[in-house]
Amino acid sequence: MIKKRFVQFIITLLFVFPSLDLSAQSGCSNMKLMPIPFNCEISDGEFRLNESFNISINIESERLFKSAQRTMEILAGRTVLFFNTHNPSIYDSSNISSLIINVNKIGEIKLDTDESYSLIITEKYLQLNAENDIGAIRGLATLIQLLHADEKGYYFPCVKIEDKPRFIWRGLMIDASRHFIPVDIIKNNLDAMAALKLNVFHWHLTDDHGFRIECKSFPKLHELGSEGLYYTQEQILDVIKYASDKGIKVVPEFDLPGHATAWFIGYPELASAPGPYTIQRRWGIFDPTFDPTNEETYKFLDKFFEEMSTLFPYNYWHIGGDENNGKQWMANSKIQEFMRVNKLKDNHALQNYFNQRLEKILSKYNKTMIGWYTDEMPSLTKDYIIQSWKGRTSLYEAARRGYRSLLSHGFYIDLVQSTEYHYLNDPIPPDSILTDSVKNLILGGEATMWAEFVGPETIDSRIWPRTAAIAERLWSPGIVNNVDDMYRRLEIVSNQLEDYGLAHKKNYEMMLRRLSNGVDTEILKNFMDVTKPLYTYSRDRPHVFITHYPLTRVVDAARPDPDIARKFNRMVDVFVDENMNDPVKLNSISKWLELWKGNHANMLKIIAQSPTLREIETLSEDLSKSAAIGLEAINLIKNRTKTDESWVNTRLASLKAASVPRGESELAVLKSIEKLINYVR
Amino acid sequence: MIKKRFVQFIITLLFVFPSLDLSAQSGCSNMKLMPIPFNCEISDGEFRLNESFNISINIESERLFKSAQRTMEILAGRTVLFFNTHNPSIYDSSNISSLIINVNKIGEIKLDTDESYSLIITEKYLQLNAENDIGAIRGLATLIQLLHADEKGYYFPCVKIEDKPRFIWRGLMIDASRHFIPVDIIKNNLDAMAALKLNVFHWHLTDDHGFRIECKSFPKLHELGSEGLYYTQEQILDVIKYASDKGIKVVPEFDLPGHATAWFIGYPELASAPGPYTIQRRWGIFDPTFDPTNEETYKFLDKFFEEMSTLFPYNYWHIGGDENNGKQWMANSKIQEFMRVNKLKDNHALQNYFNQRLEKILSKYNKTMIGWYTDEMPSLTKDYIIQSWKGRTSLYEAARRGYRSLLSHGFYIDLVQSTEYHYLNDPIPPDSILTDSVKNLILGGEATMWAEFVGPETIDSRIWPRTAAIAERLWSPGIVNNVDDMYRRLEIVSNQLEDYGLAHKKNYEMMLRRLSNGVDTEILKNFMDVTKPLYTYSRDRPHVFITHYPLTRVVDAARPDPDIARKFNRMVDVFVDENMNDPVKLNSISKWLELWKGNHANMLKIIAQSPTLREIETLSEDLSKSAAIGLEAINLIKNRTKTDESWVNTRLASLKAASVPRGESELAVLKSIEKLINYVR
Repeated sequence: MIKKRFVQFIITLLFVFPSLDLSAQSGCSNMKLMPIPFNCEISDGEFRLNESFNISINIESERLFKSAQRTMEILAGRTVLFFNTHNPSIYDSSNISSLIINVNKIGEIKLDTDESYSLIITEKYLQLNAENDIGAIRGLATLIQLLHADEKGYYFPCVKIEDKPRFIWRGLMIDASRHFIPVDIIKNNLDAMAALKLNVFHWHLTDDHGFRIECKSFPKLHELGSEGLYYTQEQILDVIKYASDKGIKVVPEFDLPGHATAWFIGYPELASAPGPYTIQRRWGIFDPTFDPTNEETYKFLDKFFEEMSTLFPYNYWHIGGDENNGKQWMANSKIQEFMRVNKLKDNHALQNYFNQRLEKILSKYNKTMIGWYTDEMPSLTKDYIIQSWKGRTSLYEAARRGYRSLLSHGFYIDLVQSTEYHYLNDPIPPDSILTDSVKNLILGGEATMWAEFVGPETIDSRIWPRTAAIAERLWSPGIVNNVDDMYRRLEIVSNQLEDYGLAHKKNYEMMLRRLSNGVDTEILKNFMDVTKPLYTYSRDRPHVFITHYPLTRVVDAARPDPDIARKFNRMVDVFVDENMNDPVKLNSISKWLELWKGNHANMLKIIAQSPTLREIETLSEDLSKSAAIGLEAINLIKNRTKTDESWVNTRLASLKAASVPRGESELAVLKSIEKLINYVR
Repeated sequence: MIKKRFVQFIITLLFVFPSLDLSAQSGCSNMKLMPIPFNCEISDGEFRLNESFNISINIESERLFKSAQRTMEILAGRTVLFFNTHNPSIYDSSNISSLIINVNKIGEIKLDTDESYSLIITEKYLQLNAENDIGAIRGLATLIQLLHADEKGYYFPCVKIEDKPRFIWRGLMIDASRHFIPVDIIKNNLDAMAALKLNVFHWHLTDDHGFRIECKSFPKLHELGSEGLYYTQEQILDVIKYASDKGIKVVPEFDLPGHATAWFIGYPELASAPGPYTIQRRWGIFDPTFDPTNEETYKFLDKFFEEMSTLFPYNYWHIGGDENNGKQWMANSKIQEFMRVNKLKDNHALQNYFNQRLEKILSKYNKTMIGWYTDEMPSLTKDYIIQSWKGRTSLYEAARRGYRSLLSHGFYIDLVQSTEYHYLNDPIPPDSILTDSVKNLILGGEATMWAEFVGPETIDSRIWPRTAAIAERLWSPGIVNNVDDMYRRLEIVSNQLEDYGLAHKKNYEMMLRRLSNGVDTEILKNFMDVTKPLYTYSRDRPHVFITHYPLTRVVDAARPDPDIARKFNRMVDVFVDENMNDPVKLNSISKWLELWKGNHANMLKIIAQSPTLREIETLSEDLSKSAAIGLEAINLIKNRTKTDESWVNTRLASLKAASVPRGESELAVLKSIEKLINYVR
């Protein structure tokens, strides 16, 4: 019998898509789960794992079979238990299984696939029920996170979970054009997506910097547009199968009519200016644009889409559509004449015409278009889905006009902002005044990993673990928004993600080894742990960087939301907010400051051997100086000394000087030291 | 002008294959190079790197172009210099290049490809000369290792290097059957091989546990024999191209007539017993064996080899041939009758008959056979190459009988022996009494990575860095054998190998994070740093292990030749050998012992949270106890106290008890502590 030990609180769910407004309970917040399920009831007792742990499934589903097998592998890896078998069996009432999975049918991967499941863990058995196998796969992701350990061994706590997603579209976009991302890294990310219950992999395959997919009808696309770095069709199919096995949809993006330089290297006749074209080497917005007035363009795209549609089985299709600067159109008299004749008053109208033509072509192949929001609303059928990236206003405007829409504004993980920022970026915040029918058009959101400043070595560290918090935002009830608890769970999840091959942790250490040129990394780590990369839009983007430049610098290794800095900042916030002069807290703060104060002297020795670090030499010096200022403040606080404005002002000026980025990196603890100064004041 | 600063010593090369016995100078031993080149002359001065560093090549060679580009990438990654371009140009006397590469021709990948090169670095320019592009690629590997740093930046020291390999066959075998190894890991290993100038990748593709290559003529081979884990032909071709771009030959192994269970799952009619067959789950030698008396066997193999020979372009072909237990042959009356009729007196004779038939088939496809040594000498044409794995006697015997031969005995890296052991395993030791004509038949050797106890997560840590020392053994003059200097350079190379994506270092840390279940890894690391996996043949191989068992235990994370243990052992050796009671050295030894003595108390806290560590709990306790004994000895040494036999005996007994493996792991510093006890005595 399951005894309810506690149900932490009753929460009123403000909005649950796509069903009715309803109330529900959730008792999961004290556990390690991410995303937090819709509802948990925890009971006394636990199910103990041993070598006879096994799984049975009531129907034949290849993907569920694989997922159960993978679950056994992960559990074996973490527990080092020698399970008799990793293979699930088909359920048979005469055999006893530890975990019985019951599903009604094989799920279809479509927009509104039912992903709900329920999971019951008792001391004697586990049961996972779902409408279809995709829901069961979501449930297995939860089960893996429920593994606990104590002195007696490994166990699952007794619990009853009812779970379902808040939004039906929970995506991750990876830009494989600006820097090519190999298949094995894509697959690891698909594994991690499934672990966090994300369900759409949006694959940005073409852009000015590379055409990354093999095309048999027009082989010059990948042959001349990729410098040999493209996915073969065999690899594309392999990735789609791999994703489908996890209930993840793959949505390709072929960015049109702008961001299209890579198409024109082999086929300059498609562009709005004669060419010739070469692959773009810098970042930014470029002129090369498809000629929407040329019928050959549509014939070409028709044949291209026909071939591509045989690869990508899912109904949704991203056509990009962003950042067309229109320069080639304006400079082309034939295009201008076409606009006059067809009464297309501006470039927006012409792009709209282009999109209408694309829509007709794609509908032949049963593909529904998705496009980035482009300042103005399109005139397309209401099948069109708008992805908002410039602000949430466009998200709501799109929905009000009857278009389905996706939020990516606030989920731009390439901008290296804090996890907290992304976590609190709710597509439909609690205070939203949208009507239900408008809310219903907001399908969800996508984390977007643009690849100007990431390559194979660093991409995982830009996606993870922060995207786990976005996954929770899109799956869990909107009321789930305790930032401290999110960070607590994120740290656990971040470790677990390593089981899928992700390199967000291990490449950090490796990069530090390379940066310190063989010297022990401890000293450099002290510095890096409180350093973060500069906000991406503040970097010298289009003018300085070239695609082949190394991504092995301090700014590349530095973490977007460094744990140590965050914890230190939290500690200072609590101390200042309490206003109690708690000596224990003050000592903890001092210990960190002492460490940083003394660190630069040692850094100098490393820098002497490793010129790669020279660009942050003064930043390291400023960390030590700022830490010394923090310690001064703490002494004043301890001695309860009053201080004059001039002391405060010189210190604040010094901190301001320290806040200047160097090596495109900046210190992440200065605001807290400033708070200590102001506290003295 | 290049001034000779020093030429460290004149060495007499005892043997250089395949040219004449000659004398040469080598001044490279004080640098960071591995393998050490044939000859170095170091001069004053250095070539300073800056952003304009570039490369030109005198001929159009795709592979040399790629290799130069990769060199630029590695240099950029290590120096964070924003080079104007990573692309080499075609040499043009009007443009000045930093590095000019001159080769006479495009090399052919064959047995005796000329891999020699010369590299000249002056303050003004670099020049790399080679007979062909493959030699130049070897030279670029040397150049990358020559990168140095000081306070002024990055530079190459002025040097003149003449280099060529001692042996023409320098291989690494990877067993992808027992555990499947994905393509990306294979490619990383090819990169690392090229960095160490290895030139043969021997790919063990089929065995009792899996048939790992797609076969279009007989698709049930991979479909039923691999559980979905196989290389597609597109992947195989991709790997062969990748290897060829580095001047590495790919030699496939299709193990026959034993080790063949995986063939028979789809095609049981080829076996010597009726079947049915399933994939083997345990390790060991199994009965299923091809039927050499069935003409259908040869028709099948002919068609199979015909298809495979279109994939693998190189002339050499491994047919395995090892560990045929002959049981199915002896139990099959038809086969026994065949032997009587054909006067084949025993199983060896029958296998010889089988091999002769294979040789005829393979010669149609221009393939020369290689086979493992099988206790008796074969009766095959002298084209046949014998790979010795049971002892070097067979190597010499094979060569004396006129067969070309390869040494793998002593290079079995799966056995987790010390780097020193492999390093000193010379195919032709200085005191060899073989005649030159026999010596000339010894082509070189291969490190062999059998995969009973490795998977994708751990394989790199079993291959690297130890294989770098084997690479030096096979490339450098035989006189290069200073173990301390090898270890000094190996540490540098081990860090550099991370640039090729190898996970030998980073997965160690990741595994420690998983093993300590989220707790800081420092304590566990103290223990692991002096723990090594049990010698593989001492593990409970065939009887206990099953293919799917987890490879995430302490024994899997532990390093075959842990650095800290080695350095401690060396420190003790020096102290004991000097017999000077040097207090500084004694203190250094004490510091380590103190660390280990106190470590177990902290380990207990981690073990309480991480049951995976329970299997080494008493081993950790014994480390602390043994360290305490070492400290007792040091106190006695310090106080110059005489001690009685009973003290010595109880301590030695305690160390002996501590030397019992647990969790298939053992402590790597006990012998040194024993030396301290004996020193007291």
